[in-house]
Parts: sequence; C-alpha cells; structure tokens
Amino acid sequence: MKQVSLLGATGSIGIQTLDVLRLHPDQFSLYAMGFGRNVEKALPLIREFEPSMIVVQDEETKRKLEKEVAHPQILCGGEGLIEASVAEPVDVVVNAVMGSIGLPATLKAIQSKKQIAIANKETLVTAGHLVMEEAKKHDVNLLPVDSEHSAIFQALNGEQRRDINKLIITASGGSFRDQTREELAGVTVDDALNHPNWKMGAKITIDSASMMNKGLEVIEAHWLFDVPYDQIHVILHRESVIHSMVEYVDRNVIAQLGTPDMKVPIQYALTYPERKELPITKNLNLEEIATLNFQKMDMDRFPCLRMAFEAGRAGGSMPTVLNAANEEAVQQFLEGKISFLDIEKYIEQALENHDRIHNPDLSTIISIDKETRERVRFQIN
Amino acid sequence: MKQVSLLGATGSIGIQTLDVLRLHPDQFSLYAMGFGRNVEKALPLIREFEPSMIVVQDEETKRKLEKEVAHPQILCGGEGLIEASVAEPVDVVVNAVMGSIGLPATLKAIQSKKQIAIANKETLVTAGHLVMEEAKKHDVNLLPVDSEHSAIFQALNGEQRRDINKLIITASGGSFRDQTREELAGVTVDDALNHPNWKMGAKITIDSASMMNKGLEVIEAHWLFDVPYDQIHVILHRESVIHSMVEYVDRNVIAQLGTPDMKVPIQYALTYPERKELPITKNLNLEEIATLNFQKMDMDRFPCLRMAFEAGRAGGSMPTVLNAANEEAVQQFLEGKISFLDIEKYIEQALENHDRIHNPDLSTIISIDKETRERVRFQIN
Repeated sequence: MKQVSLLGATGSIGIQTLDVLRLHPDQFSLYAMGFGRNVEKALPLIREFEPSMIVVQDEETKRKLEKEVAHPQILCGGEGLIEASVAEPVDVVVNAVMGSIGLPATLKAIQSKKQIAIANKETLVTAGHLVMEEAKKHDVNLLPVDSEHSAIFQALNGEQRRDINKLIITASGGSFRDQTREELAGVTVDDALNHPNWKMGAKITIDSASMMNKGLEVIEAHWLFDVPYDQIHVILHRESVIHSMVEYVDRNVIAQLGTPDMKVPIQYALTYPERKELPITKNLNLEEIATLNFQKMDMDRFPCLRMAFEAGRAGGSMPTVLNAANEEAVQQFLEGKISFLDIEKYIEQALENHDRIHNPDLSTIISIDKETRERVRFQIN
Repeated sequence: MKQVSLLGATGSIGIQTLDVLRLHPDQFSLYAMGFGRNVEKALPLIREFEPSMIVVQDEETKRKLEKEVAHPQILCGGEGLIEASVAEPVDVVVNAVMGSIGLPATLKAIQSKKQIAIANKETLVTAGHLVMEEAKKHDVNLLPVDSEHSAIFQALNGEQRRDINKLIITASGGSFRDQTREELAGVTVDDALNHPNWKMGAKITIDSASMMNKGLEVIEAHWLFDVPYDQIHVILHRESVIHSMVEYVDRNVIAQLGTPDMKVPIQYALTYPERKELPITKNLNLEEIATLNFQKMDMDRFPCLRMAFEAGRAGGSMPTVLNAANEEAVQQFLEGKISFLDIEKYIEQALENHDRIHNPDLSTIISIDKETRERVRFQIN
C-alpha cells in the first residue's frame, strides 16, 4: 500500500489524482491532503478519503474548515506543505500546488527520499538546478505528471540518456492556433479558455493559448532529462495524440500516444515502475481519429515560446522571471485588466529589466519571484 | 568487436547489413558470409569483407566461386549454414536466408547461445513453438530485423510483458491498397513490385501487396512477444512512419517511428542493447511528412491476412502450410504462371486440404513444407 501525500487536491490535477486513487483502494491510501481555500470542494473529499493530515493555505481557511470537521491535524501554508511532504508514512508526494509555494516542499520531499510526482511547474522551471542536484544526491525519481514529460519519460524506459539525439515535444497549438497575430488583439478570456483538446485549469489553458505552457515544458524537459536546449524541438500537432517523442542517435524515434486524459500520466507517476489497469480512461482509437497532423512551430507567431527558450538558455534567474511575470500577467488577463497580447509584452519587459543572477539559491529565487510579480502588478495597476 | 555471421548476404537485408557493418568497422567484423548462387554479386563483398568462412547454396556454386577466389573454407547448403551459425568466434548470427533452409541454422545457433538477428520468416512462422522453447531454454535474445517487430521490441524496452494490452502492427497496404478486389484481377507482376514506401526483395513486395506479409508478421509477433492472437491488431497506415505500437493496460501506447529504411532495425539488432550513430539514414521529419493516416483493416479486402490469423490460431502445422503454399504461389506468380488473385486461392486450398498436426517437430515441419510446395506446384502446372 503506497501512502500518498497530495498537495493541491482541489485543482484539476488533484481531483484527477483522487479519481486514480479511488480506482485502486488496495494500492493507494491518501495520507495527506493539501488544498488552498476551497473548503466547499475539499469537504466531501476529506470525508471520503479520511486523510491523516490536512494542509490549507491560511489560518482563516483552517478556522472555516474546523467548523465543518473535527480533525486532529490541520496545518497551514508553506510549513504545512513541507510537513505533508516529509511525514514518515508518506511514500509518494504528488505536488500539484500552483505557484512557487510548492517549491520548498518539493526540495524537502527529495531530501526525505520520497518518490515525487511533479505537476508543479515552478519546481523545475525556477529551481531546476537545485531540484536536480538534490534528486541526484538523494537518488530520488522525479516522476513527471505533465503528459508531454510523461511521454518522454516513458520513451526513455530501458534506454540510455547518452543515446538521445533530440526530444520532440508536441504542442496542440492551444485555443488560438488558427488565429493570426492580428486576430489575437481582440480575443476575450472566454475565447482563451476554450482549449480544443484538453480540459484543464484556467492558468494552464491561457498558457497553452500563448504557447508559454510549451515554453515552460521545454525548460522542465531540459532539467528533467538533462538535455541541452539545442536538442529540444517543439512541433505543432493539432490532435495531441502523440504526447511527445525521443529521437535516438540511431534514427529510431520512440513516442508515447494516448487520449487526452491526464489520469493516464497521473497514474503512471503513481504506479511507476509498474503499470496498472485504468478502465476509466478510453483506449486510443487511431482508426477513429484517422489523421494526425504535424506542422513547423512558428516562433514569430508564438513569442512566448521564443522567450522561454531564450530564458532557459540564459539560465540562472531568468526562468524565474519568465515564470513569475507570466503568472502575474495571466492573472491580470483573467481579471480582465490587460489584453491577451499584453501578456507577452509584460513578460518581455520583465526579462529585459532583470539582471541575471547566476546559480540563485532558494531564497534568491523566492525573492526574485516575488519582486517580479510585484513589478508587473505595479506596471499594470 | 562483435563477430558477425551473415546468412543471405546478397539479398536486400544482407546488402543493407553490410552497409551497417561498413559504418562501424571498429564494432563489427564479418566472420562468416552465406549466399545462394549469385557469385557475381558476392565476389566484391568477399574481397571487401574477407570473411573467414563462406557458405554457398550448392556444389556447383562452390566450384564457380573457387575459380574466382582462393579461399580455404567454402561450405555448402544447409550443413554449411549450420556451421556458419555455430562457429566458435561468432557472436551474432544475422539470418536473412530466404525459405525454410534457414530454420535448422537458427535452432543450432540458439543452442550455441549466439545472439540472433532474425530476418528469416520461416524461423518463427513455421517453427515458432520450437524456436521460442529453445530460446527460453538457452536464454538467447531473438532480435527482430523486420521494422514492425523491431518497433514492438523497442516499445517493450524496460517494460513487463504482462502489462501488454495489445500489439498494434501497422500495414502500409502495399502496392494495391487503393485498388478494389475487382481491379486486382488484371494486375501484373510489375504492378505488384511497385511498393509505395519500402524498397525490398520481390517475394516480400508481393506479400505486402497481398497482405500476407502482414499475416506472417502477426504470426511472428505472436511467438516473439508471447501475445495471443486476440491481442494483436493490424491497422492500415499508408505512410509507414509509425512502424508498430504496444498498448499497455494503463492506456499508454508506445510506438516506434522512423523513415522507411531497413538499416535502422538491422543496426538495432546488431548493436542491441546499445544504440550507435547511423548517419547514412535520414532523420524522420514529421514537419515535412505533415500527415499520418490510419484506417481500419478490411479482412474481406485482404483474405491473406484473415487466413494468416486463422492458421495462427489453429496452430500446429497450419502456419507451415500457409507459408509454404504462399511461397510457392508467389513464385509461380512471379514466373507469370498464375494471376495475383490465384495466390490466395492456392493458399486457401492448401489449408483446406491439410490435416493439422499438433506440435510438429522439425523434420515434420520440413516435410510438410516440402509436400505443400509440391502439391501447389503440381496443381498449377
């Protein structure tokens, strides 16, 4: 029985992780459950899974929750997330927290030699160098939950990293793949949230439309698989059937294919190195899909992807700025304060105004993250 | 340095195997070389690779060769093939011989614990039960050279056989994929030899057009990967880019993709478990290919595939009859004695007239093979 600590339980990944746990009550037990402020959504899950430990975002949420359930161990904030990550009984930490608050918990979980299923982008985008160093030192497997990274991870099964020629990450193109840059000027939040293939949270759906999601994935892939940026290639693939590929030095390309269902990579990260049945997900039916399309990625059409490659190559604190400026700008877009094309503008400005810090430590990353957000917010308001 | 014994050196697979050996003179040395009767084609290869042992089809070819080269060890026929397979210095046997003469050599090579790259269909189609039993007993890796089986083999890297849900073998459809059954009545040998994707030998090109090649591959896959026929699925995929796939119980599908170049699976079988650079083969360029198509396989349109599944499921001596009748009928078609649609007719008759023998031994297989060919030949002439 694997004891799971799920951080970010009420988000899209969290809910689907619980779907997987529900399927295999003999394999998994929910030891700890962390969520933000959504007590209403969390309550039935707490009652169903009866976790030994609960973590919420703040004292106010804690008080609200205590009125509803009598639970001996309700913790708060970043400290709580760390406790839920290092608790002795925990075998696997699923880090699906949004934002940089998830980062210290990941590092502590690695130091405690927990298996880690990563769905928190900040972990690798902003602190890839720290996280991978720790993972190596403590011989911990970082198991990707993103479908693209899960695809690459699976395509590398039984293979040698030195034989990789290229990672080929596929991109659906997001909500606006058929619009020109000119047409993007007037798009609304609702337009952007209408992703053609995947049903995901708001932030990641906007990131898909701007192609920043793919850019962050490129940076994550760089760290996760120790592959230089020149050997990471992004290709447009409308159908999202091939989730990503690895080209080896001998011209063989290994790909993972599947239906667009996050439960597949979530379960794989939980059961790895084993595979278990997943009857709640449909089989891939290529006869029905009939056609898969591929197209060259246009970096001028998607400047967020170009900026992500540039920030990744520059390294140091640049990816932290990229990510923080993007998060803040997307938030402002979702609140209706800036236009869709403003997102990239604010990111570009943030990158230009930042003096790169080489090899930043955790507290430097956290303060750069905070400053960048504040500066973007200040510029907008 | 791996010492290679290449049986069938002047055929399509043989020539491409030598291309691979030429690329890696520090990795491979040609210890033994077997060919049929084509002395002219073999001579420059013998001079270039200077094998320690040569095997030819018959005494007449041996005398012819001896007039051209002074070589201390020229052997003949099936006995010669066996000697070349078990010779002490040999590390890898590439069995690319055509027809059932390749079978005893494979079995002896397994017993001598040689690594075996299999391009000889008879080995698994007619004697899969014997070959796999020996391979298991002697803990020998059977490395497929067919692109489809190499794809599945690679998709299984680092995986557990018990986690396989389904093998998905792709078929280009061959030369006549766009013709109706009615249009097939008048096709010529030249039409049939014009394969849209792959440049291969005559026999296998005809087998691709009749879909018997896919049928034989299904039977081979059944034995090679120990997967029941109900879990082997064939899908039409015109572009031959995805060479085959494995669907796992957790809905993940792992595929191998590549350009249609046999040197890729040949080299993989030679270098396994390692990978080496293969600069003479082009990289797969999905942006250029742009579209991959998939279609349901129509068993009524391709009765040879249906018969192969039936013969495989019936087991025992049935696949031997299927294969022998097909080889003879294709030969007669290539010689202009029967029509393309007659091929399937003679195979069907041969299967109908045969009383299945359960678990046939090697001599039974060889005699059924011989009888079936004779009967088909007799019916035609």
